[in-house]
Amino acid sequence: MSSLLPILGKLILSSGFRPNNITCQRLLRTTNIIMSQDKFQGKSDRFRGITVTSHEEVCPSDQFEGKLQVSLSDWKQNGVRGVWFYVGLEQSDWVPVLVKNGFIFHHARPDRVALVKWLPEDQDNQIPPYAHHMVGVGGMVINEKDDILVVQEKHSFGPHWKLPGGYVDPGENFAETAVREIKEETGVDTEFNSVIAFRHSHNYNYGCSDIYVITHLTPKVSEITKCDREIAACQWMPLTEYMEHPLVHETNRFFARKFLENRRMGVAITLHETMLKIKQFERKQNIYTLGVTGNEPSKANL
Amino acid sequence: MSSLLPILGKLILSSGFRPNNITCQRLLRTTNIIMSQDKFQGKSDRFRGITVTSHEEVCPSDQFEGKLQVSLSDWKQNGVRGVWFYVGLEQSDWVPVLVKNGFIFHHARPDRVALVKWLPEDQDNQIPPYAHHMVGVGGMVINEKDDILVVQEKHSFGPHWKLPGGYVDPGENFAETAVREIKEETGVDTEFNSVIAFRHSHNYNYGCSDIYVITHLTPKVSEITKCDREIAACQWMPLTEYMEHPLVHETNRFFARKFLENRRMGVAITLHETMLKIKQFERKQNIYTLGVTGNEPSKANL
Repeated sequence: MSSLLPILGKLILSSGFRPNNITCQRLLRTTNIIMSQDKFQGKSDRFRGITVTSHEEVCPSDQFEGKLQVSLSDWKQNGVRGVWFYVGLEQSDWVPVLVKNGFIFHHARPDRVALVKWLPEDQDNQIPPYAHHMVGVGGMVINEKDDILVVQEKHSFGPHWKLPGGYVDPGENFAETAVREIKEETGVDTEFNSVIAFRHSHNYNYGCSDIYVITHLTPKVSEITKCDREIAACQWMPLTEYMEHPLVHETNRFFARKFLENRRMGVAITLHETMLKIKQFERKQNIYTLGVTGNEPSKANL
Repeated sequence: MSSLLPILGKLILSSGFRPNNITCQRLLRTTNIIMSQDKFQGKSDRFRGITVTSHEEVCPSDQFEGKLQVSLSDWKQNGVRGVWFYVGLEQSDWVPVLVKNGFIFHHARPDRVALVKWLPEDQDNQIPPYAHHMVGVGGMVINEKDDILVVQEKHSFGPHWKLPGGYVDPGENFAETAVREIKEETGVDTEFNSVIAFRHSHNYNYGCSDIYVITHLTPKVSEITKCDREIAACQWMPLTEYMEHPLVHETNRFFARKFLENRRMGVAITLHETMLKIKQFERKQNIYTLGVTGNEPSKANL
């Protein structure tokens, strides 16, 4: 489009006439047709895909379908495989037009939805599905007297002594989630030590699978300041009592037994922070694996 | 709506007149107005939310906005908090209307998008975000000669000996993913033993965080049948060579060292399958924690 408008401008100027109202309308109509037949630029990726982001290539609703069809035809001829449209809230009237032209939904975030169309007719769709795992962290906060910090939730099915914790925020590490959630729910500042277990199961919220990471932390204070919005009760309870308490379910008792067993052996699932380097590319990694905790093992072996 | 149509029908019949064309048009218009002012039923949840699923409450495009506004006003009066619309591809013209009425995107799957509006004006939005973790599994398949099964990917940045593996399918357990992906890529049938490590890092595909589960498996056969679409090369390599090979990056060498270390100690991150039972509710759980592998520890302690 950007290359056509100056040409039209030059045509008008070089023609030496003063355009009247009707001529202007005709010119505008011509420009609109050319604009609507112009194609989306998008961004290419290494899988021969194209991504169009609506707020980067704004297009009036009445010109969108023409421009889309010109683009699709051009991309198909040029061997493009996956075509992505990231559509912001402001351009949500693109959505029904994209669907009419064979796009399906892929994923969404509060301010935009991603639709995709796989062009090659002789190859299966090779686009990986979006994330379908929710990740939460629970914290076993255990003080020097072997008391554990426990909570009862406000919106639960029934009274139950649970571990403080919650969902991982985008970009957050498990240790950060544990420290943040424990502080929010109970007011207790803590320090992360290790992971006790990972629990994986299916068909939770929004039909997603769920990974629950159980961590061991040391409290820095003993005073509790309960979050009234989420938490009905909060207290320190002797670990021995927690392991027998009727309002503690079997999975949490299992985690408590594992904590004691690991401590007795001086081992744990420890965190190893490394940098992944591939050529110019660098990324921080958190690796959780079997390791020594620094506690003296109290038995020769398992 | 269902309760109003019979009343209209009775009114027509009891009035004793034969409606002409104009009368019919008037009646249809009246019916349309009443229909459009009728509200969506939706399904309630324990958080005082309402979910409307488009294919369960089909509504013509020209009546959608009226019916939506009547519904929103009614729900607001009745203390409803989160309002969800699950919109299928066939009703995608609801999307711009929902956005115009204050809805934002929440998540999407190929055949539908979920939009949400938080109604209480005196409370913060308490709706948890959708899943933002991709989960993949890699397999260290090690035979009785201590050879490891390694692959080079077809669409990679450069030649690199990697572990076979891939993304978890919805509802799949890590062991199932490992066995399936190894079979798909290399043709080798395997048996799952344990988890060696979990790696967690951020800003991967679609901007999601990524959990990579490294598993240890035993091959049932030695013959390789490479997947030509995904894999450029595939072979057995002595584990000692793998740990020094220039085309193996440091993270994978670390996993190999951890594997040997765990084997020497006779421990691993083992899988413990349990049932979670809360009243009538039952759910299978996979718990990964420190455990004994059954191998004799070759050292007294760590």
